[in-house]
Amino acid sequence: MTRTVIESKTKTVTIGFDEPFCVIGERINPTGRKKLAAELELDDFSTVERDAIEQVLCGATILDINSGAVFSNKMAQDPRYADNNFVEPPLMRELITRVQAIVDVPLCIDSSVPAALEAGLEASEGRPLLNSVTGEEERLELVLPLVKKYNVPVVAISNDDTGISEDPDVRFAVAKKIVERAADFGIPAHDIVVDPLVMPIGAMRTAGQQVFTLVRRLREELGVNTTCGASNVSFGLPERHGINAAFLPMAIGAGMTSAIMNPVRSQEMEAIRAANLLMNHDPDGTQWIGFARILEAMKDGTSYPDAAKAAAAGGAGGGRRGGGRRRR
Amino acid sequence: MTRTVIESKTKTVTIGFDEPFCVIGERINPTGRKKLAAELELDDFSTVERDAIEQVLCGATILDINSGAVFSNKMAQDPRYADNNFVEPPLMRELITRVQAIVDVPLCIDSSVPAALEAGLEASEGRPLLNSVTGEEERLELVLPLVKKYNVPVVAISNDDTGISEDPDVRFAVAKKIVERAADFGIPAHDIVVDPLVMPIGAMRTAGQQVFTLVRRLREELGVNTTCGASNVSFGLPERHGINAAFLPMAIGAGMTSAIMNPVRSQEMEAIRAANLLMNHDPDGTQWIGFARILEAMKDGTSYPDAAKAAAAGGAGGGRRGGGRRRR
Repeated sequence: MTRTVIESKTKTVTIGFDEPFCVIGERINPTGRKKLAAELELDDFSTVERDAIEQVLCGATILDINSGAVFSNKMAQDPRYADNNFVEPPLMRELITRVQAIVDVPLCIDSSVPAALEAGLEASEGRPLLNSVTGEEERLELVLPLVKKYNVPVVAISNDDTGISEDPDVRFAVAKKIVERAADFGIPAHDIVVDPLVMPIGAMRTAGQQVFTLVRRLREELGVNTTCGASNVSFGLPERHGINAAFLPMAIGAGMTSAIMNPVRSQEMEAIRAANLLMNHDPDGTQWIGFARILEAMKDGTSYPDAAKAAAAGGAGGGRRGGGRRRR
Repeated sequence: MTRTVIESKTKTVTIGFDEPFCVIGERINPTGRKKLAAELELDDFSTVERDAIEQVLCGATILDINSGAVFSNKMAQDPRYADNNFVEPPLMRELITRVQAIVDVPLCIDSSVPAALEAGLEASEGRPLLNSVTGEEERLELVLPLVKKYNVPVVAISNDDTGISEDPDVRFAVAKKIVERAADFGIPAHDIVVDPLVMPIGAMRTAGQQVFTLVRRLREELGVNTTCGASNVSFGLPERHGINAAFLPMAIGAGMTSAIMNPVRSQEMEAIRAANLLMNHDPDGTQWIGFARILEAMKDGTSYPDAAKAAAAGGAGGGRRGGGRRRR
């Protein structure tokens, strides 16, 4: 069975066909979060630290760390800040150091700048997931050597120099090319997590079916794990969480093994917990029953993160519901 | 493509691989609803009529009519009432006449008493769905002639004289036997809707996977539509609606084409509407967008049936959101 092993200093997470669905928290990402970017520019990491803790409480088992910030004020004073190769590597190092100091889950190093990826690899303890390589020639030549050198798994996004194809067969072929090229570097298929690219269903009616078919093929023909930016499927439509919360179980049923997503949303997390149960990846139902207590606690209006926090505190406090296993 | 056509006097519903998921409303069923059974014993059909209207408003496109009532008081006075063959046929006739007078959707005639099935077939306008035949020899011999005589589709439940097997291969074999036996009567496979039997996941960890695999096989190898009692999967577990709402999209993704279920639950109906969208069975997204308006209206605490009723009234009233198609 395909198993992709990702590690922090103390924790191991396995993405695999027989494992619970892996939730990679997407919140630590200044791209499109202007307020967060402004804070980072002022060396303020309070939101990052809060997001790290909250995402783990809400069920993320890996945290994505994206360093794609634009520092507008610094740029106005010093033109070097207009270059992401200048901004991102030290920022990535700092983000990883801060997050590692506060939570113990493995990390996913996310940047379009190879030097930031390498800075992240140097700063990370354990075995992080690298995000990402694509089928673009330049990216293949820059990223795969890092994957090999640091012996880490990598997210492979199925676009290439011609862009993102609307034809799923082309996207499959790109994924296949990346897997083959990685093999040339001695990187095994089980260390490649393919993102088949999820299109918005509002723009492309067949987007859902494409993903379900692609995930099945990637699994059966290439033997790789898969991931996706799950919320993209509902882009532009009303009541997006309802669409995401149906998409995730359907993708899991088709064989998807992870997603980069916002774990602070209870509707999506409920769908994933239930799908794990239905896939027999929650054998005693303990994960579901624990989550049901959180849902129950939310009925008086308590937010999901607050209810999850209270549940975690109750568990750790050794209350009647029990914490870890007892020794005999 | 497999198409099962069910009709009322004025409406046609098609269960099919390329159709939106068919929701068969389960509420009109005195089995396990003691209050309803007591009302029916007093010739009070007000709950039946209310349930008929409410289920249709909430999205059922077929209504199941089950006549399995136990009339305890009448039984104490007249021993003939201890016999379902005495109670059910006239009750089924009455239920169908009442429901047909108040809603225009096709019906599903549901009884374990062949005479009640025939009474229902006589009373029904259009082309109802018969519920059910099993692989039991006696049922096959009693029900299939009715299916042939009245030229109606039938639900085939995959248990036989040995009971319900926990082995999905045995349940598949039972379904295959029913399809073959039906063929001997000249009944085509597209008029058989197989219920592969959904076990409670709390009692059988593999219950979900069994159903997904069975649905795929039934579709690919026998070419039949499928249905199930969806809520059975969550029996005995907390926060059941969350489990059902993940199960339904997963089953739909595997190829399930209908379910006998409670349509008055918004969480399950939201999951089905989203799954239809993701399967490209809601091509312009109009069904989802209409449902999103109902979800929006529920945010002030309005119940799902009330919000659905208001949305339907708005549509029928010829407001800006439009009613039926305009003639040109």
